[in-house]
Amino acid sequence: MELALSLARTVAGQTSPNPPVGAVVVKNGQVIGMGAHLKAGEAHAEQIALQMAGDEARDADLYVTLEPCAHTGKTPPCADAVIAYGIKQVWIAAQDPNPLVAGKGIQRMQDAMIQVDVGLCRQEAAQLYAPFFHYIQTKQPYVTMKIAMTLDGKIATATGDSKWITSNEARLDVHLLRATHDAILVGVQTILHDDPLLTTRLPQGGKNPIRVILDTHLQTPTNSQVIQNDEAPTFIFCGQQASSKRQQQLEQGSHVKVVRLATEKISVSEVLKALAKHNIMTLLVEGGATIHATFLSAKAMQKVIVYVAPKLLGGKSSLSSITGENPLTMSEAYPFTFEKVEMIGPDIKMTALPKGSESNVYRDH
Amino acid sequence: MELALSLARTVAGQTSPNPPVGAVVVKNGQVIGMGAHLKAGEAHAEQIALQMAGDEARDADLYVTLEPCAHTGKTPPCADAVIAYGIKQVWIAAQDPNPLVAGKGIQRMQDAMIQVDVGLCRQEAAQLYAPFFHYIQTKQPYVTMKIAMTLDGKIATATGDSKWITSNEARLDVHLLRATHDAILVGVQTILHDDPLLTTRLPQGGKNPIRVILDTHLQTPTNSQVIQNDEAPTFIFCGQQASSKRQQQLEQGSHVKVVRLATEKISVSEVLKALAKHNIMTLLVEGGATIHATFLSAKAMQKVIVYVAPKLLGGKSSLSSITGENPLTMSEAYPFTFEKVEMIGPDIKMTALPKGSESNVYRDH
Repeated sequence: MELALSLARTVAGQTSPNPPVGAVVVKNGQVIGMGAHLKAGEAHAEQIALQMAGDEARDADLYVTLEPCAHTGKTPPCADAVIAYGIKQVWIAAQDPNPLVAGKGIQRMQDAMIQVDVGLCRQEAAQLYAPFFHYIQTKQPYVTMKIAMTLDGKIATATGDSKWITSNEARLDVHLLRATHDAILVGVQTILHDDPLLTTRLPQGGKNPIRVILDTHLQTPTNSQVIQNDEAPTFIFCGQQASSKRQQQLEQGSHVKVVRLATEKISVSEVLKALAKHNIMTLLVEGGATIHATFLSAKAMQKVIVYVAPKLLGGKSSLSSITGENPLTMSEAYPFTFEKVEMIGPDIKMTALPKGSESNVYRDH
Repeated sequence: MELALSLARTVAGQTSPNPPVGAVVVKNGQVIGMGAHLKAGEAHAEQIALQMAGDEARDADLYVTLEPCAHTGKTPPCADAVIAYGIKQVWIAAQDPNPLVAGKGIQRMQDAMIQVDVGLCRQEAAQLYAPFFHYIQTKQPYVTMKIAMTLDGKIATATGDSKWITSNEARLDVHLLRATHDAILVGVQTILHDDPLLTTRLPQGGKNPIRVILDTHLQTPTNSQVIQNDEAPTFIFCGQQASSKRQQQLEQGSHVKVVRLATEKISVSEVLKALAKHNIMTLLVEGGATIHATFLSAKAMQKVIVYVAPKLLGGKSSLSSITGENPLTMSEAYPFTFEKVEMIGPDIKMTALPKGSESNVYRDH
């Protein structure tokens, strides 16, 4: 199952809206087939692993990270293939919450007298599938907020200088985050101030996330990099009153799509719903401070990743990582639980989940 | 040597202005004597360990965390005792930078044909003696700045509420810090706002640090806890123009001492020099944001400890951990290196040292 999970992890971020799945066929203690689901529309992990095993699959064990499907989507049901290949026992790490599957795959295999065990490596599977389960259950993307700050909690000087807070190693790690997310979101202030490219830049390459800009009044300049560069689609969300002429100018690039909301202000939940409809399962929010405040007040994040650089900036007007409305008491703070803390080069990376959400994954299963 | 270091660590913070020292006498693989220097003026670690070993000490090995002294202070020279007891070999973790010792202890023992080895567990000793070495070399206390903040870098709401940011466990850890420091420093704003007691409150008890208040205009209220409570001395630093009448009022408590500086504003280096003259070897700076800014602009800290609570506060006017003058570029930030990161209950504790200072301890030795 460890191998199956490894296979699944390597494809995490490239299978949306499908979940990443790995499968391994084992007979007499030897691996005779393995596979991962590479991309939506292509073959499922079980299919690939079973095909590799061929006739040898009869009476073998199948280890699969997620419950095999029982419905015909773009590919035929995997549960039927498992039966057809004559698998003796199936080990499943996590049950599929997708109502189209949800136990039906297991049922179908059990009806065919296959021994089915669920829960091996459930902890690892829960981590791997947190975004998929969230997406299925809420019909919104799993949101990760990323902050890079100094040891005294600053993200920029009063004049806006933020290059660079963290080390090369930490910035590479952020590009890995980008590569494994379907979309990346920033506010128009970040576009106006930093004119970022928002692509994945890794030595080994990596998928570019869709760029999402929250821009109520369509202030994004037509000569900004997210408009000029067409390596990734750019979605710009604006309020209902934004200029139509401006929209036309921005949409001259075929990779640019302006999404006009029905309200004057941009609502985070409307944005998330619209993104989910575009098959965006995972969203990385990269700021700035106002965007972070908007997501915080909507409690619309499932994970927070904070990189802390070992330096003290100080400064009465230096920028803090999240601004927005002023809470009166400390008890109003939104509580999290640290999931992980690690060193990335000279910096510290802290990963936190909303308090209570650690166990959410299992709540309904 | 591990045992000797453990002995020394248990007395760290109670021996100032002397360093914490542990000693163990070993013969034929058995511990026959051990000791730690408990308090300035009392017997040194070597003396206690040798006395315990008695006649058995002849031809035994002595493990001691710091070079035995060669001068007569409040106690006779330890190097002479080592010789008199007939020790065969001495293992020393760190040489003493104190000019009164600095190799003379080693020399004296070597002259008496004792085998002397320096450097066993030097890394651990360097950490243990960083405050003492700093104090001897600079004639200023070793300053540790402590910050407790939310995951988004806030230390209080806009209205000043900060109770509580961190967990019980983290707050207990702060009381441990207090117990192992000679003095604790805050600004008058903290007194006016929080009226803290600034004592050590641990279930097992613990030494109270001397309370130090930076209070240019002597605004500390006579009914504040640091004036009313006499469990620890309170030093109040003020500018030359502060009211003498006010000084008299504050000094009615015999534990209160007002230190009037020769300048209008309070200079950090003058404060540190004055504290060193009062045998204060270690100083814990507990804020608030303005005091931290003053110490940052003077680069007057040898260690920074930041507790991060897993919660997001947000708020445009929420307080940041260090304020002060606004740097223009990120490159002006004062660089540190992380020494340690650990979980304290649900919180993260990060310990950082000024970049380059990690190796300072060995620079001159």
